[in-house]
Amino acid sequence: MIELFYTKPENVSDNEISFDDFEEKHILQILKKDINDKILVTDGRGNVYQSIIIRKKPRLLVTIKKNEKRPKPKINICLGVGFIRPNRLDFIFEKATELGVGNFYLFRSQFSNYSSGNFTRYQKIMRQALKQSQRFYLPEINVFDSVQLFIEQTTHFNNKIVAIGSEHPSLLKNLNKMPIKNNDSVLLAIGSEGGFSEKEIGQLCENNFSPVSLGKNRLRAETAAITGISVIQLHIYTELQLICPDNSGFHWVQQ
Amino acid sequence: MIELFYTKPENVSDNEISFDDFEEKHILQILKKDINDKILVTDGRGNVYQSIIIRKKPRLLVTIKKNEKRPKPKINICLGVGFIRPNRLDFIFEKATELGVGNFYLFRSQFSNYSSGNFTRYQKIMRQALKQSQRFYLPEINVFDSVQLFIEQTTHFNNKIVAIGSEHPSLLKNLNKMPIKNNDSVLLAIGSEGGFSEKEIGQLCENNFSPVSLGKNRLRAETAAITGISVIQLHIYTELQLICPDNSGFHWVQQ
Repeated sequence: MIELFYTKPENVSDNEISFDDFEEKHILQILKKDINDKILVTDGRGNVYQSIIIRKKPRLLVTIKKNEKRPKPKINICLGVGFIRPNRLDFIFEKATELGVGNFYLFRSQFSNYSSGNFTRYQKIMRQALKQSQRFYLPEINVFDSVQLFIEQTTHFNNKIVAIGSEHPSLLKNLNKMPIKNNDSVLLAIGSEGGFSEKEIGQLCENNFSPVSLGKNRLRAETAAITGISVIQLHIYTELQLICPDNSGFHWVQQ
Repeated sequence: MIELFYTKPENVSDNEISFDDFEEKHILQILKKDINDKILVTDGRGNVYQSIIIRKKPRLLVTIKKNEKRPKPKINICLGVGFIRPNRLDFIFEKATELGVGNFYLFRSQFSNYSSGNFTRYQKIMRQALKQSQRFYLPEINVFDSVQLFIEQTTHFNNKIVAIGSEHPSLLKNLNKMPIKNNDSVLLAIGSEGGFSEKEIGQLCENNFSPVSLGKNRLRAETAAITGISVIQLHIYTELQLICPDNSGFHWVQQ
């Protein structure tokens, strides 16, 4: 398989691509790529460039041999999560990106002990996960000051779920009842370590978030997030036999 | 909720419990527990001790007020995984312990780039996850020199699954067909970063491991492990309404 690399959209010209320091180091120093080597490059917005290295110094430059726009996944799975310990968010951004999450919604909530994170670091983590999992759409992170604002900005999702506790039906039971079709969108909300307040749960449920349980185990917030996303993506894959097109394998064009 | 702590079985006498340095520091220095404070202690073998701190120096000592033996989960979910980068195994031991995995089987395989790990560290991680998730059975780690040896030592599992790739039926479809009853055991096998060799896949399939897919996404080994365990535990919880008893809430006895 040909390695996939990332560059910002502004680094792509008509027929050439340049890279930032981080990516250049990865390509040249770590993977020891050389002149005439083929690489795949994505701009994280669905464009995939089959390219060839034409210059290594002073800055790496590749020439585009073929450009293809890959479609977005047929079902958009997104994750909303309360602020938790910043290094535990690392884990969420890495794993949820691998698992195909479209966008992230981070919110400050009543019981959050944290209210910020290292977004430069999260970007880097998502880029790495994007490349590793051969996806072509880089997720965006949206931040909200309260659960109420998060709710107001996510009304466009037609399937909304909030993981609360074992008194509610299981996520799988809920998914089985929920009609998910092509071009649908699913939003899973997970509280911070302290969970949601009664008031926040009320607000979520009034706004069509279905309360679910993720099983009998007492999970950390970041484990709950990945468990929920794992189950949602496998359910969609299984039930609807929909294949997220931006995750399908990539074959190098014959020249 | 009363905090749960861990001590090795040999630190429990008829009516008193002592702790190792790590746990003592956690109880006294981090959580600032004091004489007469109530704590819950488990030996990781199903025993739960409702205890009261009676001495802080020179070593912490608690007296047992009540001892209860908690049953094992009704369905034993275990995870077999190839050696991967040691710090990525950290993640597996933490998350899979939270998610209720009974025991771990680590094996060296043809395509593994790694063949060892930091087992002292993994023990510590599992202890922390055990306490955090309020479980009372500490998983054991078994190590095998080959996939063949792993197969030979796990013949007692009556449901065996191996995650291979998207050409196979999805894990959820497989679980729906697989009859899981009380006292059953489920073993999920995940390859190392390089996956299984053709020969290893043949050996696994010949020995009743059902090949499954975890979805269309290209997952790292440790993500695949957690995705698989997440789905298995939620499926069992959902379909059979079996409640793992060692994860149920704990109420302090009235004195």
